[in-house]
Amino acid sequence: MVFSLDKRLEQDSVLAASHADMQIRLMNDSRYFWVILVPVISPDEQKYAVTELHELPDATARTLWQTAAYLGHQLKAHTGATKINTAAIGNIVSQIHLHIVARHDTDPAWPAPIWGHGTPVPLAPDERGNRLAALQEWASQLSNTV
Amino acid sequence: MVFSLDKRLEQDSVLAASHADMQIRLMNDSRYFWVILVPVISPDEQKYAVTELHELPDATARTLWQTAAYLGHQLKAHTGATKINTAAIGNIVSQIHLHIVARHDTDPAWPAPIWGHGTPVPLAPDERGNRLAALQEWASQLSNTV
Repeated sequence: MVFSLDKRLEQDSVLAASHADMQIRLMNDSRYFWVILVPVISPDEQKYAVTELHELPDATARTLWQTAAYLGHQLKAHTGATKINTAAIGNIVSQIHLHIVARHDTDPAWPAPIWGHGTPVPLAPDERGNRLAALQEWASQLSNTV
Repeated sequence: MVFSLDKRLEQDSVLAASHADMQIRLMNDSRYFWVILVPVISPDEQKYAVTELHELPDATARTLWQTAAYLGHQLKAHTGATKINTAAIGNIVSQIHLHIVARHDTDPAWPAPIWGHGTPVPLAPDERGNRLAALQEWASQLSNTV
């Protein structure tokens, strides 16, 4: 059996790049520069669907956190964010995924968390293109650093 | 200059144990078994206050994630939680800290995140004692595994 992305994640986000068996996805929401990392783990490897951080193989966990830190660093510099929010929640979509979100003290949910707050505002094509290009550039740098 | 815990964290939580320069703290809220990890980093080491995961020294980041995974595993087994939520947010308290929360599909915030949801319900003394004892037992096991 091969890896299959959760339908909700597929609907709400777009694949920007892949790095070390990790999908780097952009959420389709102009309110926040919102990135999702999804470890690509086939059910065959694990025998069950991984939903928790503590179920990840050590090497995958290490790559996940290093990638998250690098993208958080780049996101903050690129957007001038007030704070980066990093979270594995998964109460609604159980397939393991990690949120990395650039927060501004002027954004609609600040200082509350973004999850479940208001309604996504789809990205305009140029904004979407700019964010995807930034993620793809960072992903190419990742290959040299992580 | 020595490490000093943020006043809000000090007020809302109690120190359960320390492991590898990491405070393991229990939030005083009976609604959720809610743990906070605070890396003990003196301002002298960093020259500035660490607020972001990507600002942590590599070794500290590694310990943080290994500790978080171990505590998440134990918390889930101990509480029969539906899901573990792990997050570094810090929009209100900027001193770096990581939340690890045992969530149940019957808890007051489910499936929303807990932050900013309702009002904390202080722990009764026996419940507080039980949770602290569990955390102290896991912390002692941590010394052998992480």
